[in-house]
Amino acid sequence: MDTGSLTRLVDHLIQGGVDGLFVLGSTSEVAYLRDADRGIVLDTVLGHVAGQVPVLAGAIDMTTPRVLDHARAAVEAGAYGLVVTAPFYTRTHPAEIVLHFRTVADRTGVPVYAYDLPVSVHRKLGADLLLELAAEGTLAGVKDSSGDDGGLRDVILRRRDQDLTAFAVFTGSELTVDSALWMGADGVVPGLGNVDPHGYVRLYQAAARGDWATARTEQERLFRLFRLVNVGGPRMGQNSSAIGAFKAALHLRGIIAHPATALPQLPLDTTEIARVGRHLTDAALR
Amino acid sequence: MDTGSLTRLVDHLIQGGVDGLFVLGSTSEVAYLRDADRGIVLDTVLGHVAGQVPVLAGAIDMTTPRVLDHARAAVEAGAYGLVVTAPFYTRTHPAEIVLHFRTVADRTGVPVYAYDLPVSVHRKLGADLLLELAAEGTLAGVKDSSGDDGGLRDVILRRRDQDLTAFAVFTGSELTVDSALWMGADGVVPGLGNVDPHGYVRLYQAAARGDWATARTEQERLFRLFRLVNVGGPRMGQNSSAIGAFKAALHLRGIIAHPATALPQLPLDTTEIARVGRHLTDAALR
Amino acid sequence: MDTGSLTRLVDHLIQGGVDGLFVLGSTSEVAYLRDADRGIVLDTVLGHVAGQVPVLAGAIDMTTPRVLDHARAAVEAGAYGLVVTAPFYTRTHPAEIVLHFRTVADRTGVPVYAYDLPVSVHRKLGADLLLELAAEGTLAGVKDSSGDDGGLRDVILRRRDQDLTAFAVFTGSELTVDSALWMGADGVVPGLGNVDPHGYVRLYQAAARGDWATARTEQERLFRLFRLVNVGGPRMGQNSSAIGAFKAALHLRGIIAHPATALPQLPLDTTEIARVGRHLTDAALR
Amino acid sequence: MDTGSLTRLVDHLIQGGVDGLFVLGSTSEVAYLRDADRGIVLDTVLGHVAGQVPVLAGAIDMTTPRVLDHARAAVEAGAYGLVVTAPFYTRTHPAEIVLHFRTVADRTGVPVYAYDLPVSVHRKLGADLLLELAAEGTLAGVKDSSGDDGGLRDVILRRRDQDLTAFAVFTGSELTVDSALWMGADGVVPGLGNVDPHGYVRLYQAAARGDWATARTEQERLFRLFRLVNVGGPRMGQNSSAIGAFKAALHLRGIIAHPATALPQLPLDTTEIARVGRHLTDAALR
Repeated sequence: MDTGSLTRLVDHLIQGGVDGLFVLGSTSEVAYLRDADRGIVLDTVLGHVAGQVPVLAGAIDMTTPRVLDHARAAVEAGAYGLVVTAPFYTRTHPAEIVLHFRTVADRTGVPVYAYDLPVSVHRKLGADLLLELAAEGTLAGVKDSSGDDGGLRDVILRRRDQDLTAFAVFTGSELTVDSALWMGADGVVPGLGNVDPHGYVRLYQAAARGDWATARTEQERLFRLFRLVNVGGPRMGQNSSAIGAFKAALHLRGIIAHPATALPQLPLDTTEIARVGRHLTDAALR
Repeated sequence: MDTGSLTRLVDHLIQGGVDGLFVLGSTSEVAYLRDADRGIVLDTVLGHVAGQVPVLAGAIDMTTPRVLDHARAAVEAGAYGLVVTAPFYTRTHPAEIVLHFRTVADRTGVPVYAYDLPVSVHRKLGADLLLELAAEGTLAGVKDSSGDDGGLRDVILRRRDQDLTAFAVFTGSELTVDSALWMGADGVVPGLGNVDPHGYVRLYQAAARGDWATARTEQERLFRLFRLVNVGGPRMGQNSSAIGAFKAALHLRGIIAHPATALPQLPLDTTEIARVGRHLTDAALR
Repeated sequence: MDTGSLTRLVDHLIQGGVDGLFVLGSTSEVAYLRDADRGIVLDTVLGHVAGQVPVLAGAIDMTTPRVLDHARAAVEAGAYGLVVTAPFYTRTHPAEIVLHFRTVADRTGVPVYAYDLPVSVHRKLGADLLLELAAEGTLAGVKDSSGDDGGLRDVILRRRDQDLTAFAVFTGSELTVDSALWMGADGVVPGLGNVDPHGYVRLYQAAARGDWATARTEQERLFRLFRLVNVGGPRMGQNSSAIGAFKAALHLRGIIAHPATALPQLPLDTTEIARVGRHLTDAALR
Repeated sequence: MDTGSLTRLVDHLIQGGVDGLFVLGSTSEVAYLRDADRGIVLDTVLGHVAGQVPVLAGAIDMTTPRVLDHARAAVEAGAYGLVVTAPFYTRTHPAEIVLHFRTVADRTGVPVYAYDLPVSVHRKLGADLLLELAAEGTLAGVKDSSGDDGGLRDVILRRRDQDLTAFAVFTGSELTVDSALWMGADGVVPGLGNVDPHGYVRLYQAAARGDWATARTEQERLFRLFRLVNVGGPRMGQNSSAIGAFKAALHLRGIIAHPATALPQLPLDTTEIARVGRHLTDAALR
């Protein structure tokens, strides 16, 4: 594993001004990383960050026992908290999803954030479930990557109405960050933030000081930049195209040494990579 | 792990007359087993079987690199072949699914069987893809648990028309085994076969000697028995109910010592277990 | 409307030996027919059949009040019974689907057959619901076009176990008719039967006299013929390709004068129509 | 049909300050209205409005020929424009959806608005398709009820970048109107607007004058009010619960005489209606 590129990426993000890191999320290719490689990622990042910002680690696997193994590795490596989806591959009842999060929280003793990612997990975490787990102290927050901003707002309003202010609500939707913050979300955890952390930090800071027009302009620039995820087109999976484009962009920006993606993802060809470059130019990133 | 129960289950199946074993499939709770536990299962079963019948091992994980780790462990433990799904959790193109199976076959050197399980993987393996991989020698066969018997027949007929006789077609649908064999399938890999291997063996043998009426009568008895998977009802996930019922039945039949299921599955209660018992009685299994 | 072609099609089917007709089903392009055209179809077919065989009529629309309008028109035209789906477009509870079928049966006074077509209606009619409605006399039968032969068998076995012999079970799956009859289905209502009614009648009659090998051979020929539904490929919808191919085949066989399909379906081009012709030749239909 | 209630509802909306009306949309129970009843609605509303505001009419049916019949009736009744979904029940290719909208626009000669309602139509209208049809003049606008605010923003930004300013973008999501307007949407067509048009007008007007804090406060009040759609809970379909609640609220507010809903929707009971009343009280609507 090219840990030099990984630490350069971490530096790029911290210099970009991020308030924290989320390692082993979708954009990390967590689904493609062998357990040994996940361990190297954890050790490399946590060693390099050395407490400058809190680091949350994804513990992504099918069910509770397997998630617990990843969770323990992350906690041992020094992660501040864990990001956990509902079980997938199996057919699971909401009462069992509740039990899943409770077990992970109980047995690890660190903050646990629910990861709502229906495109991968094939189910939505509803506001009832999230807020029940928030109220009892099981969940420290949620990363909502569902794209359902009505549902996101439901969580935000009920959090306020029930005085669950300790429960953090992050959006994972790169395209509606200004409006998510406007509704009351606490922050954003964007895959595209790897390519342009400065942009998302400017967006966030503008919103934080109430300069919504600047936040929107920044969001619109990032929205257009985000279209680079489509460079692979219909000849490959959406994962390959998006992750391939993020890596190509980081390579073109000089952050990482190799834009290779894991099997079985198809690689971008030179035409597609050139298109990524034009997106960077249009977004004033090179 | 209660390896004594596991070897008793293996004996139960072999004494039942099965022609082979599939370990680390859905009914094994593979999705819930930690890697260390998967290793114990492989070592226990392969050591105990000691070559009496061929053993196929599931290598079930999200993507190629992770599947390869499981595959290597299974091959080292002595598995005859591997059973592999398409990638899940990620969004994958058919060309990438092809690359996935090719990579696993190339790097392991043992027979690879595709596992078509849309209820878990959220996509169907089509006949075009399967037969392309059969023709080039990548796939040794398929376990079709899709419940789409029209699609199963498409594979069977095209196998015949293209003279791909080495490609094995197994159904994983417990409820239509007589008709799958009638269409030309080579066999069945039934979860319910853990509970009543003798029944499925009788069904298969009746079909093999052309006594279809006996095969149908046996299938109908097994169809009614299969309803035990619903004892948990809507209060739990379908996995918990089915796996819980299979284990309760094996416990009631004296094969396994404990009917416990893995987290986050809810356990069956005593009323539900009593209903499993009545299903066994109705099926003349105790 | 070209009623001459329609009556020739009816003659073709009756001379083919069918036991009944289903008008205004999916293959009739019912979803594309204006109400006035549906009326012409009903009048033309029922006038021409003149009692030679019973005629069931589809009453296909979104909800109960709209279905009732179609149902009344069909009954007035002389249909023997009605074929009705669950509501679609709306989000409907199973208790409301029950109310839907009860209302249609109560207000029309003719036999009502449930049409289980998840590919269009986006839900499955389960065995519990069907048999509840069978037991109380609301439903006279079901046309199961779900492709779920395990579910079909559940209905068939529970019909037998509950002595609901008056409840008719038809499969709508063209590809597994021999096995559906083997399981105990009463018959088949195949779209492809428009192209080759003689073949499906031979299949049915072979099964009825217990000559299952002949039934299977006939089914396998029809299975291969059915592949004509794919001639349009990915450039058009599956409806356009299938209905276009059925019509092209009927045109090539000299039954109908024009193979035109309704808007917004794309028409087959000459290459695609030639492919339909080759399918007919391979199936010995010209 | 209780046309008195219908005209009182129209008055309620116009007095509430709406800029236009959309009749025969989902909340009108269009899916449940017989054609004759749809005609009465059109005549009643268009006669009563008498040009005070523009009236768009839904032409909701499965395919082009059937939509055209509804479209002609609406145009004859005096509708300013039409609201049309993609075909449903059938399996339709994007090229056929394009042909569908072109045919309706060509043959009716009035402005046509696409209705993006995946929950009913089971597909999403993408930005590519919408903007192609906007650029060529086929579509006058879109009502986006998909809940996908990232997709909505894509349409809004590309409209701006391609100078398609004549193409109107309305959101149909009651819960994120402030943010949709913030992104650049032109307005909202909310089902809940029947219950509280004044609230949505205040929200819109606050946004229009740049007073976003007031818009948000109003939206949050309406968000909480919207929860009345859940009063029916899991014992009925979501349509019955939402439409039943809207009607109960209009009845409690004295606008309509009867809160009855069409078959096969289950009616709300008195407890559920009382809950609707409490929602009105909480929202200061009585």
